[in-house]
Amino acid sequence: MEHTSRQYERELRELKDKILLLGGTVELMIASSMRALLGRDSETARGVIASDPRVDEAELEIDHLCISLLALRQPAASDLRFITTALKIVTDLERIGDSTVNIAERAIELNEQPPLKPYIDVPRMASTAAGMVHQALDAFVNRNPDEAREVLAMDEGVDRLYVQIFRELLTYMIEDPKSTTRALGITFIAKYLERIADHATNIAQMVIFLCEGQDVRHSPAGRSPASGT
Amino acid sequence: MEHTSRQYERELRELKDKILLLGGTVELMIASSMRALLGRDSETARGVIASDPRVDEAELEIDHLCISLLALRQPAASDLRFITTALKIVTDLERIGDSTVNIAERAIELNEQPPLKPYIDVPRMASTAAGMVHQALDAFVNRNPDEAREVLAMDEGVDRLYVQIFRELLTYMIEDPKSTTRALGITFIAKYLERIADHATNIAQMVIFLCEGQDVRHSPAGRSPASGT
Repeated sequence: MEHTSRQYERELRELKDKILLLGGTVELMIASSMRALLGRDSETARGVIASDPRVDEAELEIDHLCISLLALRQPAASDLRFITTALKIVTDLERIGDSTVNIAERAIELNEQPPLKPYIDVPRMASTAAGMVHQALDAFVNRNPDEAREVLAMDEGVDRLYVQIFRELLTYMIEDPKSTTRALGITFIAKYLERIADHATNIAQMVIFLCEGQDVRHSPAGRSPASGT
Repeated sequence: MEHTSRQYERELRELKDKILLLGGTVELMIASSMRALLGRDSETARGVIASDPRVDEAELEIDHLCISLLALRQPAASDLRFITTALKIVTDLERIGDSTVNIAERAIELNEQPPLKPYIDVPRMASTAAGMVHQALDAFVNRNPDEAREVLAMDEGVDRLYVQIFRELLTYMIEDPKSTTRALGITFIAKYLERIADHATNIAQMVIFLCEGQDVRHSPAGRSPASGT
């Protein structure tokens, strides 16, 4: 029994480690996709695209681990919720990986055209979004709702940046139709970053629900308005 | 024991019914958001936005039902996978609801401006996407991988329509900068529809994995390229 319980603890620890590792991978992919854009470095962009299968594999492994924990360990209420939350979180992480691939694809296209303007707000959005992913996962493994709440606050900043970028690029498009394709490319990148931040927000909301049984996913404070798009 | 087992069957049945009901709700929201756009009917758009809390409640209820099934019934392998898949599917359904709200918001903005052009491909995309959601959920409750595979094939049609719409609207923006805001609004609506189809595809992929243990989520056949965006 002692032995089984230690084994169970080890598996739960393994679950947390795997989720943090996957989180680290997608954070790196966010950073690399930005480097590909800012440095006009399509080689790095292709690296991001090439690392996507690793994310997919990690998702599958975590799914399997969760299901085997549910099947073999019959976890008690609190762990049960932790594991079912992990099952949902891993889907968000995988889709964050997909969004970085989308950014990398747009970066490759943009790198083939002359630069439109220096990027200021886009990398700012990216680093906030990556920070949100990091903190949401920390909040999850530490079951810390306060950390998670800070993520919700950060999402408002990301939404504001998105609206700002969108308006600026719209002006470019209207004033100079030749810039439209490039401006649209950047708009889509900003939209993908906003979606990454939304996934981090979803994770944070699930963590708060996990810790407090209070559902902020659908309360005004917990909701990220998809404003300005 | 007989009694418990009948109760368990009833709860599983209830889970399926609730998922189908939620699916029906979001299908209706897709149709209404289109009616709001095509009929320039902002009242209907506001109805879509107002129905979002019902979706959120349904998601919570299904989550609770899944967790209580896991906790109290200790389901065997096949049901365990069915329930953990349900937990993931419900998240996709809720986000489909969110996308219809986004469409309704854009429709309200577009309705305040003169029409840009008649819509042909956008409603076609919407009805395919709604059909995909319907069929993916049917495949889930019937544990029918063939039905699910058809959903993957339909997603390719949606992606093609998206690229077509995007290119056409890009031409509008370049040729007539005054049309840019409206053309962008329609582009975003097409993007939300493409995302709805992606969620349906995700559901279908999970159903195939549930039935066959074969992961098509990350194989070339099971993947929807985010092409042309």
